Amino acid sequence: MPNSTRNILPTKPTRTVFIISDGTGITAETFAHSVLAQFDGIALRQMRLPFVDCVDKAHDSVRMINEAGQRDGFRPIVFSTLVDPAVNQVVRQANAMYLDLFQTFVEPLELEFGVKSTHTIGRFHNISDSEQYKNRIESINFTLAHDDGQTDRGLEEADIILVGVSRCGKTPTSLYLAMQFALKTANYPLIPDDFERGKLPDALYLHKQKIFGLSITPERLSEIRNERRAGSKYASLENCRYEINEAEAMMRREGIRWLSSTSKSIEEIATTILQELKINC
Amino acid sequence: MPNSTRNILPTKPTRTVFIISDGTGITAETFAHSVLAQFDGIALRQMRLPFVDCVDKAHDSVRMINEAGQRDGFRPIVFSTLVDPAVNQVVRQANAMYLDLFQTFVEPLELEFGVKSTHTIGRFHNISDSEQYKNRIESINFTLAHDDGQTDRGLEEADIILVGVSRCGKTPTSLYLAMQFALKTANYPLIPDDFERGKLPDALYLHKQKIFGLSITPERLSEIRNERRAGSKYASLENCRYEINEAEAMMRREGIRWLSSTSKSIEEIATTILQELKINC
Repeated sequence: MPNSTRNILPTKPTRTVFIISDGTGITAETFAHSVLAQFDGIALRQMRLPFVDCVDKAHDSVRMINEAGQRDGFRPIVFSTLVDPAVNQVVRQANAMYLDLFQTFVEPLELEFGVKSTHTIGRFHNISDSEQYKNRIESINFTLAHDDGQTDRGLEEADIILVGVSRCGKTPTSLYLAMQFALKTANYPLIPDDFERGKLPDALYLHKQKIFGLSITPERLSEIRNERRAGSKYASLENCRYEINEAEAMMRREGIRWLSSTSKSIEEIATTILQELKINC
Repeated sequence: MPNSTRNILPTKPTRTVFIISDGTGITAETFAHSVLAQFDGIALRQMRLPFVDCVDKAHDSVRMINEAGQRDGFRPIVFSTLVDPAVNQVVRQANAMYLDLFQTFVEPLELEFGVKSTHTIGRFHNISDSEQYKNRIESINFTLAHDDGQTDRGLEEADIILVGVSRCGKTPTSLYLAMQFALKTANYPLIPDDFERGKLPDALYLHKQKIFGLSITPERLSEIRNERRAGSKYASLENCRYEINEAEAMMRREGIRWLSSTSKSIEEIATTILQELKINC
């Protein structure tokens, strides 16, 4: 496009969204993102302000919010999960649309429960000492050690064993299940050797009730494999069709539940697995 | 405690909390968990109902909610992120305290932006095709391939390189940075050989601006290492003291920023690293 036409097009105004928290603000940011995804055609710049846990930092935040508003020509949107009333009160003074994720729900819950909330900042700050936290780290270590069928040892400790052809999404899903839900998740590739023998890897038969399969369309698999090994037989559509056919036939024969990862996010795959295996996390 | 006294203590009532979503509900669950953590002494049972994306499933959910209320003797708490008005309307009929995470913020935002929200379910359903999603998977693969100093190749592609002694939290933090923020994160152990040479591993000098250090108290490190190799020299408090002293001295000497992971969650460590390296995700 020539420069002259660009100049006569109106510039789309951009608005700034702040996510402000006395913790990491990561949950609030993901939440804000999904609410804002409901608005098409609004240009947004998202900014997370974590660890705002004292009045000084609250004043700094107000300055940043007000500056963004002046630059944009629109007041910013603020998603807040501030717990401390003193800090919250300062940030509320910013010239912004203030959405209080925290207080909006805490007040009605106080009425419902008939008790006051503790207004404790960073309930999770010392989480690293807790049993739950240790389980999480242990699950990540277990999952890494049992990635890609590296070892059969300790499979009896696994909560879930994923199977599927190479590059169908087993590793990211396993790591997510460990990281988010503290589930020890082993994964095992199904390879041409298994298809020739017509059997699952031997180590898996003892643990069939924990096995869940991932599949994928041959077209998508070929695309993914070609990014790694362009033009190889391994990545060819013909070979991908063969492997997927064999893997799905084997899973059907062995009574293994499976899903197609083709158009699903890691979160959706993980949630579906928990539903199917009836694991309540 | 003898059985007789247990019988005269009043049973603490338990209330059920439902997280209901047409997507995975994972963000809503984490959010609900942190709001509810503000209430001490209330016994809660949390239950996630994902993929409630049609009126039939909405009716099933209402049944589950009402049954829980009858069992508990208290109406359940429902955190909803339902987008479809028809589905939402059905679930609202349940006998429960209904907290609408979605509509509560979408309505004021519609006024602010002067446009209607799209009310689209599962904005992320086809995310697996997007560039962003590919980056995420690529970052996870990169991070796995560059765990624990496995290879120097491709370090120029890394967004972050973590260093620190063995078992100080580098691997879980690296995987989280990749999974949550799509950052390619390599990690390198600092080992006694490095301390004797008095230098960082050679491969790292080219990339000093991307390096961030993790440290930990010797007491906590010894505890963690003893879980793996009880009674070893490697796990002894004396050796942990030596390694931590040397590692911190080296990081100071080389001008590497670092933090102590001792009482921090993975999310807090990751957020602090992004702040310090001024990476805006």
